[in-house]
Amino acid sequence: MKALVYQGPGEKSWEEKSKPVIIKPTDAVVKILKTTICGTDLHIMKGDLPAVTKGRIIGHEGVGMIEDVGSAVGNFKIGDHVIISCITSCGKCEYCKKGMYSHCEDGGWILGNLIDGTQAEYVRIPHADNSLYLIPDGSDEEALVMLSDILPTGLECGVLNGQVKPGDTIAIVGAGPIGMAALLTSQFYTPAEIIVIDLDSNRLEVAKTFGATHVINSGDGKAVKEVMALTNNKGVDVAIEAVGLPATFELCESIAGAGGHIANIGVHGKSVTLHLETLWSKNITITTRLVDTVTTPMLFKNVQSKKIQPQKLITHHFKLDQILKAYDAFENASKEKTLKVMLTS
Amino acid sequence: MKALVYQGPGEKSWEEKSKPVIIKPTDAVVKILKTTICGTDLHIMKGDLPAVTKGRIIGHEGVGMIEDVGSAVGNFKIGDHVIISCITSCGKCEYCKKGMYSHCEDGGWILGNLIDGTQAEYVRIPHADNSLYLIPDGSDEEALVMLSDILPTGLECGVLNGQVKPGDTIAIVGAGPIGMAALLTSQFYTPAEIIVIDLDSNRLEVAKTFGATHVINSGDGKAVKEVMALTNNKGVDVAIEAVGLPATFELCESIAGAGGHIANIGVHGKSVTLHLETLWSKNITITTRLVDTVTTPMLFKNVQSKKIQPQKLITHHFKLDQILKAYDAFENASKEKTLKVMLTS
Amino acid sequence: MKALVYQGPGEKSWEEKSKPVIIKPTDAVVKILKTTICGTDLHIMKGDLPAVTKGRIIGHEGVGMIEDVGSAVGNFKIGDHVIISCITSCGKCEYCKKGMYSHCEDGGWILGNLIDGTQAEYVRIPHADNSLYLIPDGSDEEALVMLSDILPTGLECGVLNGQVKPGDTIAIVGAGPIGMAALLTSQFYTPAEIIVIDLDSNRLEVAKTFGATHVINSGDGKAVKEVMALTNNKGVDVAIEAVGLPATFELCESIAGAGGHIANIGVHGKSVTLHLETLWSKNITITTRLVDTVTTPMLFKNVQSKKIQPQKLITHHFKLDQILKAYDAFENASKEKTLKVMLTS
Amino acid sequence: MKALVYQGPGEKSWEEKSKPVIIKPTDAVVKILKTTICGTDLHIMKGDLPAVTKGRIIGHEGVGMIEDVGSAVGNFKIGDHVIISCITSCGKCEYCKKGMYSHCEDGGWILGNLIDGTQAEYVRIPHADNSLYLIPDGSDEEALVMLSDILPTGLECGVLNGQVKPGDTIAIVGAGPIGMAALLTSQFYTPAEIIVIDLDSNRLEVAKTFGATHVINSGDGKAVKEVMALTNNKGVDVAIEAVGLPATFELCESIAGAGGHIANIGVHGKSVTLHLETLWSKNITITTRLVDTVTTPMLFKNVQSKKIQPQKLITHHFKLDQILKAYDAFENASKEKTLKVMLTS
Repeated sequence: MKALVYQGPGEKSWEEKSKPVIIKPTDAVVKILKTTICGTDLHIMKGDLPAVTKGRIIGHEGVGMIEDVGSAVGNFKIGDHVIISCITSCGKCEYCKKGMYSHCEDGGWILGNLIDGTQAEYVRIPHADNSLYLIPDGSDEEALVMLSDILPTGLECGVLNGQVKPGDTIAIVGAGPIGMAALLTSQFYTPAEIIVIDLDSNRLEVAKTFGATHVINSGDGKAVKEVMALTNNKGVDVAIEAVGLPATFELCESIAGAGGHIANIGVHGKSVTLHLETLWSKNITITTRLVDTVTTPMLFKNVQSKKIQPQKLITHHFKLDQILKAYDAFENASKEKTLKVMLTS
Repeated sequence: MKALVYQGPGEKSWEEKSKPVIIKPTDAVVKILKTTICGTDLHIMKGDLPAVTKGRIIGHEGVGMIEDVGSAVGNFKIGDHVIISCITSCGKCEYCKKGMYSHCEDGGWILGNLIDGTQAEYVRIPHADNSLYLIPDGSDEEALVMLSDILPTGLECGVLNGQVKPGDTIAIVGAGPIGMAALLTSQFYTPAEIIVIDLDSNRLEVAKTFGATHVINSGDGKAVKEVMALTNNKGVDVAIEAVGLPATFELCESIAGAGGHIANIGVHGKSVTLHLETLWSKNITITTRLVDTVTTPMLFKNVQSKKIQPQKLITHHFKLDQILKAYDAFENASKEKTLKVMLTS
Repeated sequence: MKALVYQGPGEKSWEEKSKPVIIKPTDAVVKILKTTICGTDLHIMKGDLPAVTKGRIIGHEGVGMIEDVGSAVGNFKIGDHVIISCITSCGKCEYCKKGMYSHCEDGGWILGNLIDGTQAEYVRIPHADNSLYLIPDGSDEEALVMLSDILPTGLECGVLNGQVKPGDTIAIVGAGPIGMAALLTSQFYTPAEIIVIDLDSNRLEVAKTFGATHVINSGDGKAVKEVMALTNNKGVDVAIEAVGLPATFELCESIAGAGGHIANIGVHGKSVTLHLETLWSKNITITTRLVDTVTTPMLFKNVQSKKIQPQKLITHHFKLDQILKAYDAFENASKEKTLKVMLTS
Repeated sequence: MKALVYQGPGEKSWEEKSKPVIIKPTDAVVKILKTTICGTDLHIMKGDLPAVTKGRIIGHEGVGMIEDVGSAVGNFKIGDHVIISCITSCGKCEYCKKGMYSHCEDGGWILGNLIDGTQAEYVRIPHADNSLYLIPDGSDEEALVMLSDILPTGLECGVLNGQVKPGDTIAIVGAGPIGMAALLTSQFYTPAEIIVIDLDSNRLEVAKTFGATHVINSGDGKAVKEVMALTNNKGVDVAIEAVGLPATFELCESIAGAGGHIANIGVHGKSVTLHLETLWSKNITITTRLVDTVTTPMLFKNVQSKKIQPQKLITHHFKLDQILKAYDAFENASKEKTLKVMLTS
């Protein structure tokens, strides 16, 4: 089969690899129907994730068809269409029982990281019963690709950890795909005001069409001042960090009001300065999280009932074998106005 | 009347001041029966809190008797014995309605800070109906002085914010009075293991008698290693910071397990380094809080039913007019083995 | 002034009464600008509430202008426009401190019940600081009348007690004004499916335009069967009782799925049969509640930001002195297709 | 092997049966080391549970040693000692993922009910990885038998569903084994007052030694009056029903205070009268639950750290082959002063 292979920092190839097979009775092999590229994949390509070794097939998102199942798989049969979760969950360790699949003792984020991933014609999925979700006939499968990672990430790490509630004023710092996912899913809880902050004017325009009530281009260094003006100097109820840099995290520290939440989604490579000299008495809650994908069933119901339109996030379409072109579009997101790319086999 | 007066950095006096009077219809004047000294008072005396001005009567804890009430006070009458809360709450602003009395728009922590406090023969208490608690006859009033500040602080900022629950392994960093208050109140929720960490061997011995299941003297720099050994390298469910220094906060960052909580109680004068480069994916919750004293009624019930013995925290007794001696004992806590001092009028 | 007075069962009059005055320092007197009629007022008129005595001015909803304030009122001044909450809250008793204003020891539901109410030119509001809400200039005051009672009731007793969450399938039994309020406010939490059940076809048609995804006319006795068919025989996540009769409550018992919620809003005059012989093992939660109006600030923010349009509930308009006509329209709701009537002074 | 077999209403025998074998790859066969008898087993013996058919081996509690495992079992190996949960959980259905193992689509309460149970020398356990818990060497295995059913039932259905919290006044109606389990586990949350109500004076004396602060013999019909006297006519915060009869459930309705909880544990054979005509406005929460056994890991930690002593519940010891005698002692609980019997192989 063909697959996208990491060849060391800065190098990737679309090349022939062996088709995966069942190794354990709880495995499934899935034929990829649709997949996409994640910001994390770009980090892998730069060599930022040393755990990813040369020769690894990348990708942790997608929708596919069951090609084969192990003897202990009960929820799926050959031919079923499924959403592939970016998180593998055994369902029986201490962490899975707590709903913290991200830290599964025999799973977590391993796809396209520690084992071969979904940017390929086929992929092996361990613990299939707990890591795949059945798609009924007639569903919008492009929309459902967004349930592999980006929507649960925006929702769980941003919206749920931030405890967004009706009437809140929230700020989302970063209007890339993950910030947009937080923007879309935050509306499940009907905040009164949603402020989106970014440097890219195009993305801010898109954010408005996705439900932002205010947008701020932070290029002029006045974002804190503008947020304070919008909130009668009280600050926001929830600040969602969707970038992963010290400056954006510290912006969140500056705009969170007393009793507020800072929900970190960003993948950080460096430590940040936490201003406890002012925050110690502000009754602030700061959260971090690797997505658990526990909200996939709920998101699925709301996609099916059209309460959310995740397909809005898809800006570009390619055939799976054009994946190198798709990487180009995704890497040049600002110029190409890219959010998510859709690859179809 | 006599009162303990802040005279600028390093200077204090026990001197004659005017007896306070009712200013607003919601005020009460309270005759102090018992009071104590808080670590924050020592900070004030050093000049660390510039909002406290020369001439201010210090103190925000105590038990007293109602001397006079304003026309709108309905919950108390002259002669009633009351607990004085360190936090003044109007009961009718946005923050009070949310139970966040610490940020009351006409109150919060003002006693012995922005208005005259309790280390005096009399004190004026604004918003008396919401800021005082009735003491029935026959109660242990020394125990109840601990409900002004230290017990609700340990409980709210440490135990409740840390979401301590049955079966948890928790660590309390700092075995001063506030850490001890967290230690006592954490047992309301029956954690399986309570690790207390400090540099003072005497305090660690006391912690054992208060319910610590393990104590660690962090003087040798091996506290992280020891906690990890005690937790099968998983880290603790809850790390409570009860010191207020960068080193102790960062110790908490190092020992919090995946899915864990860091509950800050300490008053910090400097920023700290937040290691998001490792914590971003650990599903951590960090909280800060100025005590709201919303738990005073619950603490009162559990003191009355003897589920907690706060009087254990009292190591020294003085007459109110010996307050300068009491300050000596409190400032030399390690040598004098002081936790809380009790001053009786 | 003129007022609507209860004259004993079946009798009411629009007659001259003394204008109210300040009695306590925490009182305000409010000139009524807009008011409405509640289903409970009809019960009073029938004599179902013996606590309401002859001569009582009825009504517990409305928007007005501050005419006078007592000396301890701090949040309002003469001329301010305010929402009048149906629940009076002292802000300082045990129940108010817990946010359970409905059981306030010096308040609760007293307006138009134990003291004179809002269907009058003026009304005295005790504990004004905690029982009124400021209206900024330029607000839609008709919409805000719905915040006195009906919206917080639908939201608190139905939606919040029922713990409606994204992805849920919920059923609302009863499509009168209060069921409609539950329907509108449930959408703050984005349930996937909302089934509305009633006997009145017109109301079911209106429910569709308010967001119901399915409607069922229960006249044929097949509502349980239809709900089960819609839910793959699992039953609903939340059943909201908005009628107040044994039959409708037992319908909720029949359609609540395992792990589900039954949230009672209805005012019941009789006991009901609770089928514990089947429900004991179904992990069901049943709740009752007199509205606390703790959600008024949140509702206000969402009205102001146009996340909800409560004015949709208003079907008829009258001048205040036409109130007897308004009662006619409200009493003949089915024929007149009435939901809420708006009375303007 | 020998086993206790239900032979139809009123009939049971200790007889030879085939030793169970692995049927599915997720099964384990466990040699019973210790088991006990549950009140539900007595109901089965009377013929109250028609789903239990003649020839069924009874019993759903116990501690054992792994005798054999299927190919997909990963958490256990032959020779491991394990707690057997009364609830079988697949870990991968909709309900298991929500932590509602009681309603597992391929499990739930099936042991000694729909499949052969634990009152035997060996038992087959389906979905072993999710339904068994490893016991480390040196543990008190008699204490751990109480984790199969009775402690999680008292805790989950009574204490957690009732939301017992520090400072609460709670009432437990019924001082049989399950009421006692609620009594012991309620103390994880440090209620201020615990009132236990029963007809059996011996059990009430035992309840005092287990932590009850007040006991009431309800034989004189004055229990409601006594509870009201103890609570200043406010009623209790939490009423736990641990009997399963209309009279005891209605007693709970009468003593629950405004804002209170009624947590049903009892297995009910009949409907009860729910007094909504008074409860509709009392802000009451009523819960039902079949135990999920999600708290077994937490209970295990607290048994190991000696925060609870479940062995207190064991009043009688027998060899496994004396099980008919053990049934006699358990059926004559009042005369024999029996709580739980311990059967050892």
